[in-house]
Amino acid sequence: MTSDDPLDREAAQALDAADPLAPLRRRFSLPADKIYLDGNSLGPPVREVPARLAALADDWAQQLIGGWWRGWMDLPRRVGDRIAPLVGAAPGEVLAADSTSVNLFKLAAAALMARPDRALILTEESNFPTDLYILDGLAGTVGRDVSVVRLARERLIDAIDDRVALVMLSHVHYRSAARWDMATVNERAHAAGALSLWDLSHSAGALAVDLAGTGADLAVGCGYKFLNGGPGAPAFLYVAARHQDAFVSPLPGWMGHARPFDFAPDYDAAHGIARFACGTPPVLGLTALDAALDVFDEVSMAALEAKAQRLGDLFIRLSEGLPGIRLLSPREARARGAQVSLAHPHAEALMERLIAEFRVIGDYRPPDILRFGFAPLYTRHVDVHDAAMALRAVLTDRDS
Amino acid sequence: MTSDDPLDREAAQALDAADPLAPLRRRFSLPADKIYLDGNSLGPPVREVPARLAALADDWAQQLIGGWWRGWMDLPRRVGDRIAPLVGAAPGEVLAADSTSVNLFKLAAAALMARPDRALILTEESNFPTDLYILDGLAGTVGRDVSVVRLARERLIDAIDDRVALVMLSHVHYRSAARWDMATVNERAHAAGALSLWDLSHSAGALAVDLAGTGADLAVGCGYKFLNGGPGAPAFLYVAARHQDAFVSPLPGWMGHARPFDFAPDYDAAHGIARFACGTPPVLGLTALDAALDVFDEVSMAALEAKAQRLGDLFIRLSEGLPGIRLLSPREARARGAQVSLAHPHAEALMERLIAEFRVIGDYRPPDILRFGFAPLYTRHVDVHDAAMALRAVLTDRDS
Repeated sequence: MTSDDPLDREAAQALDAADPLAPLRRRFSLPADKIYLDGNSLGPPVREVPARLAALADDWAQQLIGGWWRGWMDLPRRVGDRIAPLVGAAPGEVLAADSTSVNLFKLAAAALMARPDRALILTEESNFPTDLYILDGLAGTVGRDVSVVRLARERLIDAIDDRVALVMLSHVHYRSAARWDMATVNERAHAAGALSLWDLSHSAGALAVDLAGTGADLAVGCGYKFLNGGPGAPAFLYVAARHQDAFVSPLPGWMGHARPFDFAPDYDAAHGIARFACGTPPVLGLTALDAALDVFDEVSMAALEAKAQRLGDLFIRLSEGLPGIRLLSPREARARGAQVSLAHPHAEALMERLIAEFRVIGDYRPPDILRFGFAPLYTRHVDVHDAAMALRAVLTDRDS
Repeated sequence: MTSDDPLDREAAQALDAADPLAPLRRRFSLPADKIYLDGNSLGPPVREVPARLAALADDWAQQLIGGWWRGWMDLPRRVGDRIAPLVGAAPGEVLAADSTSVNLFKLAAAALMARPDRALILTEESNFPTDLYILDGLAGTVGRDVSVVRLARERLIDAIDDRVALVMLSHVHYRSAARWDMATVNERAHAAGALSLWDLSHSAGALAVDLAGTGADLAVGCGYKFLNGGPGAPAFLYVAARHQDAFVSPLPGWMGHARPFDFAPDYDAAHGIARFACGTPPVLGLTALDAALDVFDEVSMAALEAKAQRLGDLFIRLSEGLPGIRLLSPREARARGAQVSLAHPHAEALMERLIAEFRVIGDYRPPDILRFGFAPLYTRHVDVHDAAMALRAVLTDRDS
């Protein structure tokens, strides 16, 4: 092998040395003895997290209730405005709030209210389960006859017709990493008079999502995966500016009121994205998420997506031909998210061995999937190389 | 005055010296230069908060995704089980999750589903606004004809009849501190075949709430007021054990699934309280709330309620006869929560002066209310004395 062939470790190290994004890794607290390829489940903390939480605890003790008027109250909007450019949204189109599941309920319900004469929600049959459950829960809660239609990926686009209120999809599939062409789906939805709602949990922070440019109507996403906001971090929601004053939340909590501290008996929805807030904002979680977003100030999402694609391509090359392994993710980088999933009949046992023997941390997903995430902010080419070699070792050992 | 008359400062100090609960104050970080009578809006941090958050940040950095299996996943149940004895519930009846508003939506929706042939939700017309908004939002979301009936306090009990699905009340009124007799309401609701849902935001952590003993069906409450969980802390919900396996959440997120990590396409609600979980639990907020609950291990709710009553009685005595002041809260302690509200035509300006000139931190609530909270864990008799003297000073000055 030559030094520009990344199939040896030195070549991988050389790629890291030449990578302009490589210094970003130092912004994170990562254990030296692990190869962490699970940032798509839980991102690591940025180094500033302990100091930011300590400052918040001090602020809480000193300011007490006054803290709300010295920055806390604005956090959902302010953190939302920091997420906005990462997903192709404008300031005022994103709010950091609640969980992805709760936000999905809010926006799917708003979409149904905005299309009162349509009875169908289309989604992918293998969509992330909580998305399926929440859509079913919503259909069971709204009184009118609403059906959630789960379709195979290849049948979905052609099923968008004038009975459809909402097309709800995960931009990147949690198992396969297959990526929807957001522009095409939005266009087909709009041509049929339907709305689109995207779950960005597996793309926000790793890919150059372009909500506004592709005409997306609504979106939700996760704060603790590629955005690194911490375990159970606040999620976010996006409502295109053109819809904000026409759509209403089914959960009109006081923080979505135009004047919450008037304590008025009747709800008067705030203008703009604030009307999709509900209860009191979770300041601790928002503070950690805010700290995590600092890292994104220094880099473009296009550069991060390109790195994620290169890392995924490299892993695919290095794992090709391993015994019993089948590539589940799209081979073509632009059809894929920032992870690579491999199928193997003994996937669960293999992942246990990768973790226990090689400290390569990926995910097992039933029934037979090994999932490896390549978070472009901190994953090195050498991590990809070492993980592939570890996989080779456990497979060779098993087969020997 | 004699030394057993608490109308002078020395007598108040003597009451503190004799108070067996007085040492608990040292468990909190409280600014020395403020008299904080707003723990009913935001409780102060316990001293352990910075260390607990630092340990969590370290855990997050070291364990990464593995942290979920080393304690984080159990936090909603574990913290719920710690709140349970504070509100008269059994282990397994309380879950720490989401916000009060979201939990209210979940449980009110579950109640409507459990009473499909009934169309009315009764509540108090001056209930906390977010409760009113959420009930209206729910009524607007469920398709069947549901009406939220807002009634004056004195008309409410007699309006409970066989058309009522749910009686939803705040145990302690946020403005007046008036306390409902929970047992009577539950009994009347049950006699009519209706369910009860209590908002405990202004009672949990300050009063000896007895959900099970009074037969309550459902409850929600706030983590950041008298429970001291921090700004925007996770809230909690209670579902009586007898209802848990029959009631369903309208927000069936994956954390309420019997086996979330099977990633099954169809929802199979967990047994017990876990089915009322929704999205991924907010670990930072739950960690601070968990730390705050340590203080309650050392004291009974009966002792805390008795102290809150004594502090409120003292404040009422000391503020009686002040010019322009009218007592809004019940004079009788057992009909009152842990706050005292006074009406005055210039309430907003008076509260600004109390804060600016005397560093007495209470709340102004529109249109004319001065609200003072007497959190029994850390409020001293001398604080009550000094606050009343400050109020006297600003009133006398105004009138001079």
